[in-house]
Amino acid sequence: MEKAIKIVTIGGGSSYTPELMEGFIKRYDELPISEIWLVDIEDGKEKLEIVGKLAQRMWDATPYNVKVFTTLNRKEALRGADFVTTQFRVGLLDARIKDERIPALHGMLGQETNGAGGMFKAFRTIPVIKDIVEDMEELCPDAWLINFTNPSGIITEAVIKHFGWKKCIGLCNVPVVSMMSEPKIVGKDLSQLNYRFAGLNHFHWHKVFDEDGKEITDKLIEHINEKEGGTPVNIFQAEFSLELLHSVNLLPCGYHRYYYSEKEMLEHSIEDFKKGGTRAEQMKEVEAALFEVYRNPDLNKKPEELQKRGGAYYSDAACECISAIYNNKRIHMVVSTENNGAIPCLDSDSIVEVSSLISANGAEPIAWGEMGSFEKGQLQVMKAMEECTISAALSGDYGMALQAFTINPLVQKGSEAIGVLNELLVAHEKYLPQFKEKIRELKAQGIASKDPVVVDLMKNGH
Amino acid sequence: MEKAIKIVTIGGGSSYTPELMEGFIKRYDELPISEIWLVDIEDGKEKLEIVGKLAQRMWDATPYNVKVFTTLNRKEALRGADFVTTQFRVGLLDARIKDERIPALHGMLGQETNGAGGMFKAFRTIPVIKDIVEDMEELCPDAWLINFTNPSGIITEAVIKHFGWKKCIGLCNVPVVSMMSEPKIVGKDLSQLNYRFAGLNHFHWHKVFDEDGKEITDKLIEHINEKEGGTPVNIFQAEFSLELLHSVNLLPCGYHRYYYSEKEMLEHSIEDFKKGGTRAEQMKEVEAALFEVYRNPDLNKKPEELQKRGGAYYSDAACECISAIYNNKRIHMVVSTENNGAIPCLDSDSIVEVSSLISANGAEPIAWGEMGSFEKGQLQVMKAMEECTISAALSGDYGMALQAFTINPLVQKGSEAIGVLNELLVAHEKYLPQFKEKIRELKAQGIASKDPVVVDLMKNGH
Amino acid sequence: MEKAIKIVTIGGGSSYTPELMEGFIKRYDELPISEIWLVDIEDGKEKLEIVGKLAQRMWDATPYNVKVFTTLNRKEALRGADFVTTQFRVGLLDARIKDERIPALHGMLGQETNGAGGMFKAFRTIPVIKDIVEDMEELCPDAWLINFTNPSGIITEAVIKHFGWKKCIGLCNVPVVSMMSEPKIVGKDLSQLNYRFAGLNHFHWHKVFDEDGKEITDKLIEHINEKEGGTPVNIFQAEFSLELLHSVNLLPCGYHRYYYSEKEMLEHSIEDFKKGGTRAEQMKEVEAALFEVYRNPDLNKKPEELQKRGGAYYSDAACECISAIYNNKRIHMVVSTENNGAIPCLDSDSIVEVSSLISANGAEPIAWGEMGSFEKGQLQVMKAMEECTISAALSGDYGMALQAFTINPLVQKGSEAIGVLNELLVAHEKYLPQFKEKIRELKAQGIASKDPVVVDLMKNGH
Amino acid sequence: MEKAIKIVTIGGGSSYTPELMEGFIKRYDELPISEIWLVDIEDGKEKLEIVGKLAQRMWDATPYNVKVFTTLNRKEALRGADFVTTQFRVGLLDARIKDERIPALHGMLGQETNGAGGMFKAFRTIPVIKDIVEDMEELCPDAWLINFTNPSGIITEAVIKHFGWKKCIGLCNVPVVSMMSEPKIVGKDLSQLNYRFAGLNHFHWHKVFDEDGKEITDKLIEHINEKEGGTPVNIFQAEFSLELLHSVNLLPCGYHRYYYSEKEMLEHSIEDFKKGGTRAEQMKEVEAALFEVYRNPDLNKKPEELQKRGGAYYSDAACECISAIYNNKRIHMVVSTENNGAIPCLDSDSIVEVSSLISANGAEPIAWGEMGSFEKGQLQVMKAMEECTISAALSGDYGMALQAFTINPLVQKGSEAIGVLNELLVAHEKYLPQFKEKIRELKAQGIASKDPVVVDLMKNGH
Repeated sequence: MEKAIKIVTIGGGSSYTPELMEGFIKRYDELPISEIWLVDIEDGKEKLEIVGKLAQRMWDATPYNVKVFTTLNRKEALRGADFVTTQFRVGLLDARIKDERIPALHGMLGQETNGAGGMFKAFRTIPVIKDIVEDMEELCPDAWLINFTNPSGIITEAVIKHFGWKKCIGLCNVPVVSMMSEPKIVGKDLSQLNYRFAGLNHFHWHKVFDEDGKEITDKLIEHINEKEGGTPVNIFQAEFSLELLHSVNLLPCGYHRYYYSEKEMLEHSIEDFKKGGTRAEQMKEVEAALFEVYRNPDLNKKPEELQKRGGAYYSDAACECISAIYNNKRIHMVVSTENNGAIPCLDSDSIVEVSSLISANGAEPIAWGEMGSFEKGQLQVMKAMEECTISAALSGDYGMALQAFTINPLVQKGSEAIGVLNELLVAHEKYLPQFKEKIRELKAQGIASKDPVVVDLMKNGH
Repeated sequence: MEKAIKIVTIGGGSSYTPELMEGFIKRYDELPISEIWLVDIEDGKEKLEIVGKLAQRMWDATPYNVKVFTTLNRKEALRGADFVTTQFRVGLLDARIKDERIPALHGMLGQETNGAGGMFKAFRTIPVIKDIVEDMEELCPDAWLINFTNPSGIITEAVIKHFGWKKCIGLCNVPVVSMMSEPKIVGKDLSQLNYRFAGLNHFHWHKVFDEDGKEITDKLIEHINEKEGGTPVNIFQAEFSLELLHSVNLLPCGYHRYYYSEKEMLEHSIEDFKKGGTRAEQMKEVEAALFEVYRNPDLNKKPEELQKRGGAYYSDAACECISAIYNNKRIHMVVSTENNGAIPCLDSDSIVEVSSLISANGAEPIAWGEMGSFEKGQLQVMKAMEECTISAALSGDYGMALQAFTINPLVQKGSEAIGVLNELLVAHEKYLPQFKEKIRELKAQGIASKDPVVVDLMKNGH
Repeated sequence: MEKAIKIVTIGGGSSYTPELMEGFIKRYDELPISEIWLVDIEDGKEKLEIVGKLAQRMWDATPYNVKVFTTLNRKEALRGADFVTTQFRVGLLDARIKDERIPALHGMLGQETNGAGGMFKAFRTIPVIKDIVEDMEELCPDAWLINFTNPSGIITEAVIKHFGWKKCIGLCNVPVVSMMSEPKIVGKDLSQLNYRFAGLNHFHWHKVFDEDGKEITDKLIEHINEKEGGTPVNIFQAEFSLELLHSVNLLPCGYHRYYYSEKEMLEHSIEDFKKGGTRAEQMKEVEAALFEVYRNPDLNKKPEELQKRGGAYYSDAACECISAIYNNKRIHMVVSTENNGAIPCLDSDSIVEVSSLISANGAEPIAWGEMGSFEKGQLQVMKAMEECTISAALSGDYGMALQAFTINPLVQKGSEAIGVLNELLVAHEKYLPQFKEKIRELKAQGIASKDPVVVDLMKNGH
Repeated sequence: MEKAIKIVTIGGGSSYTPELMEGFIKRYDELPISEIWLVDIEDGKEKLEIVGKLAQRMWDATPYNVKVFTTLNRKEALRGADFVTTQFRVGLLDARIKDERIPALHGMLGQETNGAGGMFKAFRTIPVIKDIVEDMEELCPDAWLINFTNPSGIITEAVIKHFGWKKCIGLCNVPVVSMMSEPKIVGKDLSQLNYRFAGLNHFHWHKVFDEDGKEITDKLIEHINEKEGGTPVNIFQAEFSLELLHSVNLLPCGYHRYYYSEKEMLEHSIEDFKKGGTRAEQMKEVEAALFEVYRNPDLNKKPEELQKRGGAYYSDAACECISAIYNNKRIHMVVSTENNGAIPCLDSDSIVEVSSLISANGAEPIAWGEMGSFEKGQLQVMKAMEECTISAALSGDYGMALQAFTINPLVQKGSEAIGVLNELLVAHEKYLPQFKEKIRELKAQGIASKDPVVVDLMKNGH
């Protein structure tokens, strides 16, 4: 690749964009970008303008001649792209508010990427990513798609397995967070350790070895409940049972707390909700404040405030992944990619989140091998849930959506769960064309959330 | 087999024994038994005597010359046996009371074969069945072991896969109940329909075809929530979502209600518990009444009262299975046996409950083929739970018991679950030699159920 | 199925048709047929007329009122059919002559269903069976397709897996021959034994159990090299190594001789060829003589001479299979059907030849379970060969045909094999539309068999 | 690892040892060895002395203070070893002469690592490597075993899967030869390309990508029949069919010629044999000449003559592998290691030869994913052959040896093959204690090779 690199970021109006710019700036010498196109939709136009200007100011403060374009015309942006990153959020934070409030009001977990909310995020996103892939086939058939729209693993499975776009890699910051914090616990630098991850996005385990090949997983387990234990800041730190983890001898990811401390996490989330509303509502305020900061015409670097936003390292991981492909770096990263047998208890064409070698070939997983019954059973049921979710998202089949809800370990099964499903369908009508018929039917039955916040959002066209 | 048939029933003092006798009597012409040995333990001696006498009276009322022996000496009974049936209950109903009360007191499901209670029943039973298999290797190496001690699938897996006794078949009445009630719904006789079951014990699905090969599963789904729908009487009939079932197009078993209507089943069970104690306590009364009936020296047939006891058809299924082997009948029965690929998403050497051909070869499963994501994921996580349970039962490893609890969908994960595990370990100390060390440690920490019923049982040496 | 049964036989002009009639006549009471349609092509018109008249005479000699129709119009015949049997031979015996002569002239095995010839039979047949399935979709969407056109397993895999016609069962007489001859060796009747077969068409093993469930495979191995050992008469009886078979403890099928006594079988086949031409040429004479017999207007039953023709029991197996479906018999037959996990080392959607339960549901395999390394490796490579063959037959891809030749254990790899492939392609041009381009190219290079028999056949338009 | 490194080489008297020394010398800065122990047996004592002295002279000519020990006492050498390399040859070249002559005299391929000879090399080696592993368990439980004794994949499978020594890596020079010669064809340096290999030792394929991720496999296929095409010099270059390889779009290894050009390779080998005896006999002369060179007390570096010996790069690969482990290099090497799912069509615990990441963790395979039918079937049958071979080598079961012979694609099946098996058993009596009984029986039947060379070798105690 001798030609100038063209990057396209879909959902470019996101508050994360400055981190992405920082990541590219810091790698300019190895990754000589010429153009960055930030794409967004009409609803996000104002934010796109603000963040686009900040992005350009950031580049202008460097010696590099990089032009930042903002556009609502996705096709214009995609033509001839080399790398496309996706960080869009269908329905914006308002949709997430519904994802979190409606389950919570029924006494269930209201969370962005897990449980009922996570499945609905997939229902909304999959039709959109399908359109994007179709555009890419036409306009940039050789481009890499670096996805960090959540639920990242599910979206990547839809893109690779269902839409046939093989040059796609899914990213997540959760493994990065572990790799940034744990080495300090054992007084090492990350470069001295060999990390091996395997599982699914937001549901993986890892083990760690020192430079002599000695496994140190058990030492890190001892510290997992500490602040530095590697859990992202947005997840409540209910205590893991160390006896359980030592028995498994693997380090779970932060999201495992929802599964291994289900009761405490649920209680905390309900309590939190009663006190301060959902995390989405908090985030909306954080975002508003951030954009106030971004507007400042003197600001020409990533502001401190962004770091606190959660999701740290996400954008940096994307930049590193792009550079590793471009420069054939052959480095270890943890990404969502085609299994290819690396986790033998899952299908070869399933998408898994796993330690991979990143090179000009893209991501190639390092074979993990057989799992114990405990990890195996959990992975298999989670993958089945993902498959049901994708199937429902593609077909708009209500029965399949019910299957996804029934198999999801974080949904308490029964008529209340069906109530949550129905209310969410109606609440997200605008973004669920595939479920149109069923939603019409549910509305005819009078089904709708009575929650004033939801009612209000819908009145305002969300 | 020209020689006279010797049957041995371990747990012979059970209240079910008269049904077993009835089953043998009705099949005498095809299954010419000469001796029946009822074996039990010291604690069950009185009941063994009562039921043994009734059994002999039942045979004496027939033209057949069959001798019923009662003994506390298992080895004496096993020598030269042709068929051994197991229907024992380690710790008797008192142990089941603890299995049901302790989870219920923590707000969880207290149930005999599912959730926490079911796993503890396995922990207690596996060491005993191991001893039985060792005795059989010595005393009746060619005998068939027909197991109907619960959790029947787990026990059968331990016997076949771990103790290497291939001539073992696990039985359950749940499929029989479906096959006895459903045909009436479509106005057919069972003999006109082809039933196909697949799954695990207490967690299977089935589909049904008429004599022209047309599938009628969807018609039966329509009636599943009715009284005649095929659910055993001991399971509360929370409503299945017909939309879910039609989408899957399979008939779940009655126990699926705990999984698909988790919330309603849990609420009902807690409510029930508050009103009338556990089902085990009710059963204890039922049993006491039954034995009063059995004592009647004029009684020489299976009394009506037994039918109401739940577990109907269990013993008859055992007799039919024995006769099908003896007579090389090549008939369809639904049993727990080695998978051998019949359900491809589970290991070949796993035990599954599946439509099988029963002949002199024993049970050979009819291949079912690939499952949809929904059924597949659920089966895989349930099998993983069974594997963790067996592994913990064999090793006494506390971490593995924690894994089993954490992966069981009917246990709400978190510190409360660990509390339930710990209290159950201490409560069942007498029957859990493999966990001796851990129990000592827990007792030293002062862990014990405060429930007066449990306290009382333990005071009385249970 | 109350309505009158309509049977359609494609390739109805075959010399086997009288056996088929006999099979239906003997089962009329349980299988009340009203119409039999014999379909053939223009080239087979004369034989169709002869055999059609004989068939009608056979029925007329019974008390049953069954009408036999002959037609060259397949669509007319298929409309409203209940069962379609296929016994056609694309290119007739003349094509088989080429399949056998060309390899033999290059020092390789020339055989109808194995090695180079068998693959070419598939290349010719698959496009035709595709058309038949398309007609059936339109004209008799509920009919069963009972295939006994060879290579039966490959054709069945094309029909079920590639053309999506699930109601298809492949038949072969080889298992029947074993089951007809072996019981005598142990002085038993077939009904007393349990046979279990697993493998692929013309490449399967079996084991046998007596009515007490005792395995008697080893006793039968002792007699496998004897005349009564169960090998079809058309296969030369090179000696199996008994030490090998006892080690495997399975009974191979007759065709295994080509694989386990490769050298002797090849030598014998070359020698035979030098003496008397190919078996196809001998068969052509046998057929001509048979049709002379069939012409006799006084003949109204299956003539003795047909029995000697090889392929005995084929047609009777087809009749029995049809009756078992129609009458929901639930009996054991060995057929080619979807694996569904019965042989876990092969894909679930592969077609295997395996002990099955035949009922109104069609064929459902009895799970066999894991195989030893020896059987497993051989089955897997044979299935891979079948897959390459089907893929080449569907696509006309020459490279894929080369893959099939290279992986087939009975083709000696190298430039000579490529020569055989090329000559066969040119020789069968008329029946290989999918390879049109490649054949044109080969002809331009002057490739053609110089064998006078082949040259002659081609001159005469074959 | 701060302590001085101790290397032990079993079969240290091999003519390859100077290359090994050269490899260590050139890496001394990164791999600070203190002691090298060359171990051999009584029969190899003289060669051990010669090569040991040369090795010491080589080190003495460097600035590094490394001591070379020679010993016949393996246990003494192994105590405290860090890395053990194995390059021994049970029965020396004399045994290989028998492996090659006896099949050739029966018209079959006589080859060191493929066909009959390769299986017998495994039969002789596996009992010895078992003893070595037992010694290591006792004396150096943390050491890595780097095996390059052939058949390297089979030996590695025995060590890891059967003897449980997980820290074992199998090496072969064949992939190295490809990677050394092919890049020149496309005018690139190896460092610019990404190579991916998968398969079994001496039976693998590879594909190649340039630094932009573009696959260039097809370009390299075009040149595979040229001298620089990557085939080791010891393999006759029968022409690959380019149409076949383009269809598969993978580069086979040189040994594939025995399978894809079976006829030409066999003919060439028989012809060669008639002209000049076996390759083993030629090698014996080459070795004798080499050792004359090694004796020269002025020689203190690897002599030119060794390069011609075949097997080039073997020892260098071993040194590089050791250094990559010691220095946690995380580089790509092609080695025999546990599959772990990398090739999903083979068992996870099988040993495969595959592109791996080499680090302090040892070798971790890069997941390759599903194979096409052609490659899959071949790999599966070859792995089955390896499994039968290992099973026979471990048990001494003659039936299993017959199974291995019957499934090996390079043995022409039939009575002649049994003759070869029997003669080889008798000829190698000295090294096959596990087959003692069977050999006694065969000898009693008068079975023995009549070949004068074999007779002579046996007279001289080989």
